[in-house]
Amino acid sequence: MQLFYVPNFSLDEPYLTPEESHHAVKVLRLKAGAELHLTDGAGNLYTTEIAEPHFKKTRLFVNQVAKPQTPRPVYVHLVVAPTKSPERMEWFVEKAIEIGVEEISFVLCEHSEKKQLNFERIQRVAISAMKQSLKLFMPRLNPLMTFADFMHKPFVQSQRFIAYLPEKAPPMLASRVKPMQSYCLLIGPEGDFSSKEVNWAMANEFQPVSLGQSRLRTETAALIGVHTFNLLNGM
Amino acid sequence: MQLFYVPNFSLDEPYLTPEESHHAVKVLRLKAGAELHLTDGAGNLYTTEIAEPHFKKTRLFVNQVAKPQTPRPVYVHLVVAPTKSPERMEWFVEKAIEIGVEEISFVLCEHSEKKQLNFERIQRVAISAMKQSLKLFMPRLNPLMTFADFMHKPFVQSQRFIAYLPEKAPPMLASRVKPMQSYCLLIGPEGDFSSKEVNWAMANEFQPVSLGQSRLRTETAALIGVHTFNLLNGM
Repeated sequence: MQLFYVPNFSLDEPYLTPEESHHAVKVLRLKAGAELHLTDGAGNLYTTEIAEPHFKKTRLFVNQVAKPQTPRPVYVHLVVAPTKSPERMEWFVEKAIEIGVEEISFVLCEHSEKKQLNFERIQRVAISAMKQSLKLFMPRLNPLMTFADFMHKPFVQSQRFIAYLPEKAPPMLASRVKPMQSYCLLIGPEGDFSSKEVNWAMANEFQPVSLGQSRLRTETAALIGVHTFNLLNGM
Repeated sequence: MQLFYVPNFSLDEPYLTPEESHHAVKVLRLKAGAELHLTDGAGNLYTTEIAEPHFKKTRLFVNQVAKPQTPRPVYVHLVVAPTKSPERMEWFVEKAIEIGVEEISFVLCEHSEKKQLNFERIQRVAISAMKQSLKLFMPRLNPLMTFADFMHKPFVQSQRFIAYLPEKAPPMLASRVKPMQSYCLLIGPEGDFSSKEVNWAMANEFQPVSLGQSRLRTETAALIGVHTFNLLNGM
């Protein structure tokens, strides 16, 4: 099965987006009558067929509306400082979505060497990963913000962690995760968090945790975090 | 700290390999007297200094020999069918070594679309990942073999698993892993294992397992397998 993505899809205006129209009509060369599955990224799956192929605005017939999927009973929010190599960040986003994640944020830290993020590219990678792994929910992606801005937002996740390597190793993340919660995990840049950032996070009830005995790259640490939450919830 | 790799390093002949000589002398431009840490990939760490820089055969003074590291009390062996994209396989090898793995094998399955593997490149990626993550053990890497050849080898790992998605989902890998064992996990190609292959593996006491509710790419499944063994052993 191949999945198309049309955010805010409506039965009253059943059109593919310009990107998906191009993909369906120009790349896949689908004709009128071809079956096509699509999601709105909000838990809905539609079985449609092409009514009127058009390279920018393909009109569909909706043949079937699946029972909406409910969101997962956990909420995983990964907050990561972009790596120097943009490919490594894109890779993380792809894999995190495959495994299962609800929200990804990007923060600029004191020790961040990388000051920008190609957010449009990250969004494209995310959409492609969602379609490839047949997910019906598009994770929320937040553009790059400063650590300070992040700390000033209200925290809705009940279990908050910061991966940090002080002299004395903190407890393992896995030993602190309570099942069926909402989680937020902060992963620092190549040069780690500053002590000011760690203290700030701890004042906001982020618990310092370790992700194991290995020295991990930023994107590996972030991915392991995502998998730890999923694994400990049997997902 | 930057780590150099000299397999079979000997105190009697303290030389860098041609690759590492080139890297030290030509790329990093290290001179006589420069300190240099190296491992033999068998648990040993040497603190040395350059005695005689040479672009092919740099001679060293060994200043300190660390107490040899003992191998981990677990043994993780991942067996994977190469993906169509060689980058995805290289990525898996890099990440698996960062997280912790003892052995990686590559098998050619009935449904494999990819029939070759650039094994030299895989070895280079592995060495680079070992150095980058400051590991003192080089995992064993086995060149591509057929599934049949693999099945005819003796199995030394005590807990053996095959990730497989039949109609009725098998138990989760995490629910079957006993701590402090040696493990072997088979991950199939994009087209999954054939039923003949699954039966053959089961006859050799490979237990069918699931890696979760998500549809995962081959390399993601393999990496999640590696992390599951590590996590459940507190590593």
